[in-house]
Amino acid sequence: MSQVFFEVVAQCPQTRARAGLLHTAHGTIGTPVFMPVGTQATVKGLSERDLAGELGVEILLANTYHLFIRPGHELIRRMGGLHRFMSWPNAILTDSGGFQVFSLSGLRKITDQGVEFRSHLDGDLHVFTPQSTVDVQLALGSDILMALDECPPYPVSHAYAREAMERTVRWACEADRHHRRQMEEVLGRHALFPVVQGSVFPDLRRRCAAALVDLGSDGYAIGGLAVGEPRVLSLEMVEAAEEILPRDRPRYAMGVGMPEELAEYVSRGVDMMDCVLPSRNARNGYLFTSAGRLIIKHARYKEDGRPPDERCRCYTCTRYSRAYLRHLFLSGEILYAVLATRHNVRRYLDIMQEIRQAIMSGLFPEYLRSVRAACVDAE
Amino acid sequence: MSQVFFEVVAQCPQTRARAGLLHTAHGTIGTPVFMPVGTQATVKGLSERDLAGELGVEILLANTYHLFIRPGHELIRRMGGLHRFMSWPNAILTDSGGFQVFSLSGLRKITDQGVEFRSHLDGDLHVFTPQSTVDVQLALGSDILMALDECPPYPVSHAYAREAMERTVRWACEADRHHRRQMEEVLGRHALFPVVQGSVFPDLRRRCAAALVDLGSDGYAIGGLAVGEPRVLSLEMVEAAEEILPRDRPRYAMGVGMPEELAEYVSRGVDMMDCVLPSRNARNGYLFTSAGRLIIKHARYKEDGRPPDERCRCYTCTRYSRAYLRHLFLSGEILYAVLATRHNVRRYLDIMQEIRQAIMSGLFPEYLRSVRAACVDAE
Repeated sequence: MSQVFFEVVAQCPQTRARAGLLHTAHGTIGTPVFMPVGTQATVKGLSERDLAGELGVEILLANTYHLFIRPGHELIRRMGGLHRFMSWPNAILTDSGGFQVFSLSGLRKITDQGVEFRSHLDGDLHVFTPQSTVDVQLALGSDILMALDECPPYPVSHAYAREAMERTVRWACEADRHHRRQMEEVLGRHALFPVVQGSVFPDLRRRCAAALVDLGSDGYAIGGLAVGEPRVLSLEMVEAAEEILPRDRPRYAMGVGMPEELAEYVSRGVDMMDCVLPSRNARNGYLFTSAGRLIIKHARYKEDGRPPDERCRCYTCTRYSRAYLRHLFLSGEILYAVLATRHNVRRYLDIMQEIRQAIMSGLFPEYLRSVRAACVDAE
Repeated sequence: MSQVFFEVVAQCPQTRARAGLLHTAHGTIGTPVFMPVGTQATVKGLSERDLAGELGVEILLANTYHLFIRPGHELIRRMGGLHRFMSWPNAILTDSGGFQVFSLSGLRKITDQGVEFRSHLDGDLHVFTPQSTVDVQLALGSDILMALDECPPYPVSHAYAREAMERTVRWACEADRHHRRQMEEVLGRHALFPVVQGSVFPDLRRRCAAALVDLGSDGYAIGGLAVGEPRVLSLEMVEAAEEILPRDRPRYAMGVGMPEELAEYVSRGVDMMDCVLPSRNARNGYLFTSAGRLIIKHARYKEDGRPPDERCRCYTCTRYSRAYLRHLFLSGEILYAVLATRHNVRRYLDIMQEIRQAIMSGLFPEYLRSVRAACVDAE
């Protein structure tokens, strides 16, 4: 029995874009979907009411590495799982923790059995294996788990990329086997997605995808994107994997992207995306608007009584001015981060809503052209 | 014509406590009232919706010194005043800026004309006079302004306290004269309260109050409290001033107090209070609850699934556990400050609500006894 069920409800006649419904144990999610990132069991600055209530977020991402380190997955299990711990009613997707091991922690050792690493907080030694990261994610009670993968840095040789890709496939098989065994005993539905790797080499991406398809998973992730490679290559890697991956399963492009890139990924058959950009950039003073990026500290906004985005209907934009947000930002006020994050996440969700509507009404090719034209204008 | 109008609606038969209604240009406020502090045009972490909507805050305090320094009162005036700038629909009380000049800024020089000081942000030299701080507060569009006063440190000699008190009275007369002249031209209603000073000397407090009563002001503040003196003296100073101040005008005890002290001040005839404690302590990990203070980082809350306060109905308490808040606090998450502040402010407002209800129903003496008994139990 599938742990999550994906239903394609509309397809674009010209591109690979589709609109779907992803049914999970914690609700049904309209796709394509953007998932806000709740690293440490919180989307920074936003409450459940902001996210589920006002913004209508149906699924968010939490980081296994961070939660494993603090407060610990066993504590979260004892507290009734991550949904209950963070008071989140809708779906949760967790990564495997592998990416943070590679990007955050010092001193790590990769073997065929897994990866040994030191906590970035206290230096304690830990090991993640394909099996253990499934167990950690099951302790969290995630709706969608990721298999442990190795994400090589960019650039990397074809030889190393191939080695990492092959290890990723072996780990995915082990994680899958372990997950299927656990599923016989664990309550609830928890899908495991393997991750396509292969750096910027289309042949490796294709081989990886083909090997993973054999697992018959409920969905597939495409990882190793947005790690420094040119954007044209990221999109090419998605294309290489996508033509192999089954059309009836959701595809999740990990860690992307900029607002103007979202439609590009969708046009290549991507159904799910996540990115820290809306929240992190908000805190750093960058607001995404329907008229482009707004850098709030600029002197030109000093007495600007307009909302950040005149076409946005979020709480921040209906209530506060650029001048006020600039004052809060320059004063280091918490409320700035709260209001800016709320707006930026809303902007991403609005874009996804536009994309989904365009696909549903058969107008996605026109929508994509308009996004591309706006990008050219902005250059 | 009075700029704010105060109406006593119930009096305690045994104490000096009373319940009232304070009518301002931005709404009517039930008293006794606690005013959350919005130093830099924001109560840290809380939006207008949190404050006016969920918490029902009818009046908040903003700091003239901070807003004068950044973003500047002229900017706020051009943006339509502080209410509009910070999107706040209800009443605003501003202090004169004097207290921050004495507590925050370096290098200051007090003369009979006013006080010269350097900005704590950039070292720029500024002068506050009784007239100029009225003008700054009128530029902000405050509903209730404070006259410039000199708040001496504690302890201080009787001789210096007397000198500072006499200067405070002279400044209050000048501020009052200037304010009355301005009121002939400025739109809206903006009351000016003079401030009773006199350190911990009852004779000075009485003399100061008597001199200020001659101004026939719309209300009176009692300043120089909670600057390090023993609490028993703070309360005695309120008593000394209160017996002189007119019963038909609101009395505002500045910068107090701890939760268990609120009823003590009210029992001595105080109608308005403000304090940074609920918000500042929240951020520092101290939660005020109906069962006493809770230090969220304590290990005992690690797996405590209960809300911070089991009898509280605030959003934080209805939705989140001690274990989760502890995790957020230890992780340095913004959401911790947001949720904790929301709870602590609610706790203060709930206490004021209890106090007001007790006065209205004639049960304030019993209420006060129960608060005192709880304090003894806690010791």
